[in-house]
Amino acid sequence: MKNTERTRVAVVGASGYTGEELVRLLLRHPGAELAAITSRQFAGKSLAEIFPRLAHHATATTLRFIDVRPAQLAESAEVIFLALPHGVAVEFAGPLLEAGAKVIDLSADFRIRNAETYKEFYTHAHPAPELLPTAIYGLPEIYRDKIRDARLVACPGCYPTSILLPAIPLLRARLVESGSIIANSLSGVSGAGRKAELDYLFVECNESVRPYGVPKHRHLAEIEQELSVAAGGEVTIQFTPHLIPVNRGILTTLYFTPTATGKDPKRIDAAFRASYADEPFVRLLGEKTLPDTKNVVGSNVIEIAWRFDPRTGRLIVMSAEDNLLKGASGQAIQCFNLMCGCEETAGLI
Amino acid sequence: MKNTERTRVAVVGASGYTGEELVRLLLRHPGAELAAITSRQFAGKSLAEIFPRLAHHATATTLRFIDVRPAQLAESAEVIFLALPHGVAVEFAGPLLEAGAKVIDLSADFRIRNAETYKEFYTHAHPAPELLPTAIYGLPEIYRDKIRDARLVACPGCYPTSILLPAIPLLRARLVESGSIIANSLSGVSGAGRKAELDYLFVECNESVRPYGVPKHRHLAEIEQELSVAAGGEVTIQFTPHLIPVNRGILTTLYFTPTATGKDPKRIDAAFRASYADEPFVRLLGEKTLPDTKNVVGSNVIEIAWRFDPRTGRLIVMSAEDNLLKGASGQAIQCFNLMCGCEETAGLI
Amino acid sequence: MKNTERTRVAVVGASGYTGEELVRLLLRHPGAELAAITSRQFAGKSLAEIFPRLAHHATATTLRFIDVRPAQLAESAEVIFLALPHGVAVEFAGPLLEAGAKVIDLSADFRIRNAETYKEFYTHAHPAPELLPTAIYGLPEIYRDKIRDARLVACPGCYPTSILLPAIPLLRARLVESGSIIANSLSGVSGAGRKAELDYLFVECNESVRPYGVPKHRHLAEIEQELSVAAGGEVTIQFTPHLIPVNRGILTTLYFTPTATGKDPKRIDAAFRASYADEPFVRLLGEKTLPDTKNVVGSNVIEIAWRFDPRTGRLIVMSAEDNLLKGASGQAIQCFNLMCGCEETAGLI
Amino acid sequence: MKNTERTRVAVVGASGYTGEELVRLLLRHPGAELAAITSRQFAGKSLAEIFPRLAHHATATTLRFIDVRPAQLAESAEVIFLALPHGVAVEFAGPLLEAGAKVIDLSADFRIRNAETYKEFYTHAHPAPELLPTAIYGLPEIYRDKIRDARLVACPGCYPTSILLPAIPLLRARLVESGSIIANSLSGVSGAGRKAELDYLFVECNESVRPYGVPKHRHLAEIEQELSVAAGGEVTIQFTPHLIPVNRGILTTLYFTPTATGKDPKRIDAAFRASYADEPFVRLLGEKTLPDTKNVVGSNVIEIAWRFDPRTGRLIVMSAEDNLLKGASGQAIQCFNLMCGCEETAGLI
Repeated sequence: MKNTERTRVAVVGASGYTGEELVRLLLRHPGAELAAITSRQFAGKSLAEIFPRLAHHATATTLRFIDVRPAQLAESAEVIFLALPHGVAVEFAGPLLEAGAKVIDLSADFRIRNAETYKEFYTHAHPAPELLPTAIYGLPEIYRDKIRDARLVACPGCYPTSILLPAIPLLRARLVESGSIIANSLSGVSGAGRKAELDYLFVECNESVRPYGVPKHRHLAEIEQELSVAAGGEVTIQFTPHLIPVNRGILTTLYFTPTATGKDPKRIDAAFRASYADEPFVRLLGEKTLPDTKNVVGSNVIEIAWRFDPRTGRLIVMSAEDNLLKGASGQAIQCFNLMCGCEETAGLI
Repeated sequence: MKNTERTRVAVVGASGYTGEELVRLLLRHPGAELAAITSRQFAGKSLAEIFPRLAHHATATTLRFIDVRPAQLAESAEVIFLALPHGVAVEFAGPLLEAGAKVIDLSADFRIRNAETYKEFYTHAHPAPELLPTAIYGLPEIYRDKIRDARLVACPGCYPTSILLPAIPLLRARLVESGSIIANSLSGVSGAGRKAELDYLFVECNESVRPYGVPKHRHLAEIEQELSVAAGGEVTIQFTPHLIPVNRGILTTLYFTPTATGKDPKRIDAAFRASYADEPFVRLLGEKTLPDTKNVVGSNVIEIAWRFDPRTGRLIVMSAEDNLLKGASGQAIQCFNLMCGCEETAGLI
Repeated sequence: MKNTERTRVAVVGASGYTGEELVRLLLRHPGAELAAITSRQFAGKSLAEIFPRLAHHATATTLRFIDVRPAQLAESAEVIFLALPHGVAVEFAGPLLEAGAKVIDLSADFRIRNAETYKEFYTHAHPAPELLPTAIYGLPEIYRDKIRDARLVACPGCYPTSILLPAIPLLRARLVESGSIIANSLSGVSGAGRKAELDYLFVECNESVRPYGVPKHRHLAEIEQELSVAAGGEVTIQFTPHLIPVNRGILTTLYFTPTATGKDPKRIDAAFRASYADEPFVRLLGEKTLPDTKNVVGSNVIEIAWRFDPRTGRLIVMSAEDNLLKGASGQAIQCFNLMCGCEETAGLI
Repeated sequence: MKNTERTRVAVVGASGYTGEELVRLLLRHPGAELAAITSRQFAGKSLAEIFPRLAHHATATTLRFIDVRPAQLAESAEVIFLALPHGVAVEFAGPLLEAGAKVIDLSADFRIRNAETYKEFYTHAHPAPELLPTAIYGLPEIYRDKIRDARLVACPGCYPTSILLPAIPLLRARLVESGSIIANSLSGVSGAGRKAELDYLFVECNESVRPYGVPKHRHLAEIEQELSVAAGGEVTIQFTPHLIPVNRGILTTLYFTPTATGKDPKRIDAAFRASYADEPFVRLLGEKTLPDTKNVVGSNVIEIAWRFDPRTGRLIVMSAEDNLLKGASGQAIQCFNLMCGCEETAGLI
């Protein structure tokens, strides 16, 4: 049975790139009614003033940013999206949950189940460890049923999505050595957020390619947590992010050493098909073509291709996604659809 | 007679894009010895730390940014380049001149001869109007001899250079109506300087084209001043700058109504040839080809092409330059060469 | 009354950028059923193979390019979109119309009412002048009613749309001198089509800005035709297109000399409001903000802003559009909606 | 002792990106006189016509492309640069060498010592295997002395340079497992050459990131040949090239498993310093900063940085170079300088 009434939703911290994407998607979502958008910085301004590209929507001139307390927000919306920096989202989540709202958090605050791991990677104690057991990791292809019943969803990071979806089927089927994983990722600049920093100026990024966060990027915490679940044992991986001069898109190239059974290409193919053949947002390119970010930017699709290298015996898996959609706001809407009984693809195709 | 000794020079405020270009050019200049670079923000840091792309130069690890008073600076260098924001440069120029140094200023502080006009466009009274009569406008193709003897050179802005060099020969020869001039300019993002502002983030500039400063950009003050000199009477023009997603380059398209004599293409051609045929940094494309910023970026050259439109009777003149070179630091070096008796092209080819 | 059945449509020559956009829009259009796509080059291939970014649509693997005669095509579709080069489209249009289909042509073949003018600008005699009187110029904001009843719609070019929508209300209201118009346009590279030519290679376009087609671009024929209708007399304009390094987007800056009545800003404002206040795809920015291609790319919206320059007495009007949407395929869908009784915004918001 | 007379040189096939760079560098080289440039396609045209950006050089209007036989060419120049496609260069090299000229070849024709390996990777028998033993691999940091005496230099490919310079010192010192090497490379579009192919159109490359040539790119032949020499045994590596939207620049990220001795960071540091501390074109960033293509584009410098990952035990080494300079034409000039007794940095700083 499908939900026929629109669910009232709010977006907290709707002034960054993921917030803008959320608002854009929710404005045209058949099952959502955007009841409130909040921003301390832009309180009082209309949506049309702050995001001119959304100005032709009917509500763009009437919908205004507000700056309210979590409790008030829970009165006007049933589902609240948090598009806030990590460490800030947690302050909203508790009161909102207590007031009966469902929360879809796009920050890192609820992605890590182990408070110690959180502290190691985020350098401060988790402020609300009691909430961690209730949070569901918002990767629908992996946790679909749990997301349906969740009250608190922690949406995966952009890099983690691009690594986990290709790697999990291989680890689950024991087709690759869990200690062999190297993930080389390339991200568009919107991944850094809308921050006025010299490093992200046009002139500093254009005609530039550079690695960063080597060798211990924060996203490793959630990546390894989820890979370990899939492998049934602790997994540590190599991960190198790079900044490239595109607005959007992540291209990840993964290197694996196959196990004895993983040396059979048919099994690789079968593992991917078994996991994703019916997934609306996973496009399996197999051994035929190669991913390209321009084929996924603007959509919630992740492309996955693979090749065996007979010379080295390694398996190479490549994925492409839009970091703001499948890597953030699109995936959040996919979770929302599951939580509210909408078609999973509602508002996304 | 050519100068055989190297002139000791300093760059004040060497931390922006024009400052970096000045330093890069001076490091390889056969007639200059870079004695000092100053920056409040980077004092104590080496050149190599702040500008990694210059790190392979011999002095890059030994030359360090300092934060000194103008008087001290005049002891270590004979010629001082000021790469400072307008309003700040003027504070350095006076003491430096008094201490006997020559000053090449890249800001707007000494470009406007009339203190009232300065106030109109820069919204505050000029802090040192007594210096204005001594300043020479640093456009070598127009003021070569005066620059040779100058103690204070005011380098033209990037847009003004792209407009003045094409327009002055036409106005001087009375080939165009002085009230008919429209200048439509497109600039790369480095023209906005190295400022951490949201508007100049990669994501805000990439895949974006936009006009700004319509209709009264500050550069109009110096553009109209110099066009009026050329025309022998007051000239007011239309000028619309646009921001385009390239690092460097200005493309200006100028529209003129020709006078009766200006309707003869041979006269247009003759006027440009008479002015620029022997200029090392002006490339006359005439009616054959069209300018392209990629053909001038990285060089001190300005390209100029023109076309008559028999349908409308108008004359269209197009120019292309590197905003950081012919539009700023390259032109400053050209002035330096004149002031110090070097070959005018020294360090620039 | 709204159409409730889906109209069967076909896209001929669906292999270029406008064809791809048409297909993308039609796949998600609530009132259209994409019955056929044709391409000589790709006949036999599936949509998913040729346009990977559309591969997640349900029909992308089953819908295959075919290479058929016009008469056959008319059997499978009621409305045929022609995304062919000029000179080729005309060969399809006649037989299709004869077979009873409606034709929406995106080429230049039916835009010019006067066969002589066509010959002047396209350098060969028009092959089917008898069809010209039946063609309607597909600018819905100007010819809405005629488009509703049309059997042959000639969609405007990308530059013309960006010039005509801002200029027509001003000419109609006699607010600007019809001989004073200068249009300076900047276009993204997709405007050149998907052609394997050196000039459009990444390396030749990136970090490059250049004028082209100076001073007599083919689009002038249709621009001046429509401006003349609006002005009630022959209009000749100045038009300079430039190529800039973005995928999509046209930014046009127009310069006008106002008439005596046009000197009153309120009348300018009133003229624009009277024409466009209720238009779903025209966003009037007035004197408040300035257009930016990034705010319209991906949508069928055209932004229009204006400023008076009290210094020069001129009126500056600026527009921004997505050259592949409002400048081509989006506008074609807008016409389709009118022709088929759909909501005018169907499939476009 | 330094050469004081200029060496007469010619560039064959000077119409692509590497050819243009060679010409640009040779025009300002203090020890070279550019006697001839050849191109079948452009024969009769002046340098200024074909490469407008070089048009301000004194000889640009007088130097014209010619189409001559190798023997004739050997009369006018002592050193001939071949900037031709592989398979074509070899046809010129034999006759030129026979006629007494020295040859610096930028194609792949003489990089592979083993004719069988050549056949495996380039799919046809080597046309002149007798010349292979005389060719010296033009990597000055590795083969400086041999290059000095060479008559035929085979300049390394762009990817190989970015991989070999970081990897060779580690393999020579037995600090890394030779079977563990993974090279993930990102290249600007100029690496594909100036070819009118759809894949390299602006619209296809801009806002796109994609792997290609997976898993067996031709450059592997020379990379593994040279790594095997360094390791003293056969080395097979994993190599994945990617295309990114910049004009120039290669960023390579290398993953190694250290040997027992290689686990000591001091030894890694020592190995790099021992190899490159005095090299004018290798910038060792060590463990302090990270490479960025924008810091090397326009120069002949390669940046190398490294990090140990204590979590995985792996060593990550990253390099950045300009693919057209250190990866092609700049390195060719460096070889030329060695062969002709110039300063190794002549014309390159």
